[in-house]
Amino acid sequence: MVARAYLDHASTSPLRPAALEAMLPFLREHHADPGRLHAEGKVTRVALEEAREQVAALLGAGAREVVFTASGTEAINAAVFGAVATADHPHIVTTAVEHSAVLDACERSPADVTVVGVDEIGRFDPDEVVAAVRDDTTLVSVQLANHEVGTIQPAGEVAAACRERASLVHVDACMAAGHVPVDFRALDADFCSVSAHKFGGPKGAGALLVRRGVRVAPLIVGGAQERARRGGLENVAAMVGFGAACAALAGEELAGEATTARALVERAAEGVARVPGVQRYGDPVGAVPHLLCIGVEGIEAEPVLLGLDQHGVAVHSGSACSSEILEPSPILAAMGVDAEHSLRVSVGWNSTSADIDLFVDAFPKVVERLRALRTG
Amino acid sequence: MVARAYLDHASTSPLRPAALEAMLPFLREHHADPGRLHAEGKVTRVALEEAREQVAALLGAGAREVVFTASGTEAINAAVFGAVATADHPHIVTTAVEHSAVLDACERSPADVTVVGVDEIGRFDPDEVVAAVRDDTTLVSVQLANHEVGTIQPAGEVAAACRERASLVHVDACMAAGHVPVDFRALDADFCSVSAHKFGGPKGAGALLVRRGVRVAPLIVGGAQERARRGGLENVAAMVGFGAACAALAGEELAGEATTARALVERAAEGVARVPGVQRYGDPVGAVPHLLCIGVEGIEAEPVLLGLDQHGVAVHSGSACSSEILEPSPILAAMGVDAEHSLRVSVGWNSTSADIDLFVDAFPKVVERLRALRTG
Repeated sequence: MVARAYLDHASTSPLRPAALEAMLPFLREHHADPGRLHAEGKVTRVALEEAREQVAALLGAGAREVVFTASGTEAINAAVFGAVATADHPHIVTTAVEHSAVLDACERSPADVTVVGVDEIGRFDPDEVVAAVRDDTTLVSVQLANHEVGTIQPAGEVAAACRERASLVHVDACMAAGHVPVDFRALDADFCSVSAHKFGGPKGAGALLVRRGVRVAPLIVGGAQERARRGGLENVAAMVGFGAACAALAGEELAGEATTARALVERAAEGVARVPGVQRYGDPVGAVPHLLCIGVEGIEAEPVLLGLDQHGVAVHSGSACSSEILEPSPILAAMGVDAEHSLRVSVGWNSTSADIDLFVDAFPKVVERLRALRTG
Repeated sequence: MVARAYLDHASTSPLRPAALEAMLPFLREHHADPGRLHAEGKVTRVALEEAREQVAALLGAGAREVVFTASGTEAINAAVFGAVATADHPHIVTTAVEHSAVLDACERSPADVTVVGVDEIGRFDPDEVVAAVRDDTTLVSVQLANHEVGTIQPAGEVAAACRERASLVHVDACMAAGHVPVDFRALDADFCSVSAHKFGGPKGAGALLVRRGVRVAPLIVGGAQERARRGGLENVAAMVGFGAACAALAGEELAGEATTARALVERAAEGVARVPGVQRYGDPVGAVPHLLCIGVEGIEAEPVLLGLDQHGVAVHSGSACSSEILEPSPILAAMGVDAEHSLRVSVGWNSTSADIDLFVDAFPKVVERLRALRTG
């Protein structure tokens, strides 16, 4: 079997062994509804609340501020739709480089939406965002880090400036959480959405942090779970895995993993820089540590991706959320980049130097071959 | 350790070993986004579509009619909110004994809602439901089986009658699927919601069946997953487990498990009938096979539940979805029963005669003790 290098952690990471180990008893044995009065229900109730504490601890939130969801996407939808649900004429301010979950939810909501642009490294200007806030603005939704180019955003400055205003603030931290410190209290936002599988927690687990005292209409109704903020049986095993993934990053662990990730990414960056006509997108310094986003002059991203796959290297092309739609990247367009798609190389908790070696070895061969085909 | 009998399968069942076995490779190894173009993504894409075929096969649906969700509750919300999303003045017809996911979604929707009552065994009259349908009715939402008393409903008759009308029909089959045959094609409804964990699939997995050709606005947006009907990364491991649980019921297996369940439930019914003042609720014949719902004259359900728990028997009280809200049962009220709560004893795929023995032994002792306390 050919060696493979999985370098698409920014799409989704494998489950950390510690998370799986924590989940197994809840898949095998402790399965009861945590809302029940019987002993079986008490076991899962205690586990669920412990997981909530672990998630809250990593993210600088109070445990009661954590509303568990089935995904980051659900958390984002809950924030956007929930925030505007009771407004008569809602207005949302957001940016051009948000994830499609944010932009699609804004578009589907009844709100009037103002979209603020970004500079050439994909960063929005907090003053520009705040300047777009009107007296009747219901929600400001900004990301903490970009999902395609990795640029870390001044979301905290936006939240701080909006404290004086009537508007609620949602920070999409799905790309940031688990890779850079996220401190909900310091961020001072009303909502913050996170996804577990982006940093080694299970799929099917996310959270919307809701600032104490902020009331929001639930997206999914039908039970008093999550303190009446999200209906439906709690997926205790998934939340226990989410909690364990957060616990694995407690103390110095997050910084340690980030240092390793950055070193791997910089080695990948050095490798691709030896190929002529490769451009790096985003801010190489003020970015999440685990992601390298590049363009190859004169060559579309998809054939590079497929060529790398044949060499055993899995990366992702751009920001598209499904292989069925490879539409031009709105992120690159907002940055003014003259390319439709980028190549995103991303590492995670179990990435190794060998993965980068495989990529750095394969990349020039793939590009050379495609260039030869093109000119030949 | 004291032996325990878990008789709360109607709340949630433990995961079938076959489902867990099917899931483990997707928790341990195959973790990639099924929407990606790389080899890792292809593995999960193939698995996801195989799971979809398995779910479709059990439920008599086409694979493309299956929209995976994270829960039955999410599926119900998607049906109700999706059906009314584009109507100017939506009108919904539903019944008084629906799950709170249906009733709460109807209430939260912008629709005008007509609620049809039931008879003393909890069954609605299909003619009465159809008579409530107006020319401008957007959605008729009825259950296939009641979640508290188990009564099987004439949902198919409602769907058939509504075929002539403009209204969409949603059938909530969360309590029925996996316990009685559900045939989406024969049912002839537009939507049908199911939950995996009610019959030994994993938590975090559900499906909304959407009749071919019916368009519905998604509840959760932000990606083209599920053929643009539900945004967010697919939880492949959970859907594989859901598929495996469905496959475990293929052929004669569902009927076999139902026969066993009915025998266990009837033994439990005979046991409780020996205690004076015990009343059985619902239709003992036309009901899901795995559920016994009773009342004990002069005694509230909660102390019985707690007493049984001390004897090692886990059952559930009524229809409340959370221990924090033990409100009077709207199901019993709709049936005209003079009691606030029922006791629900429910079996599942791994229930045994020993579980029933434990219950039948403990029940008279608990009731006697409570009656002695009351009169003493």
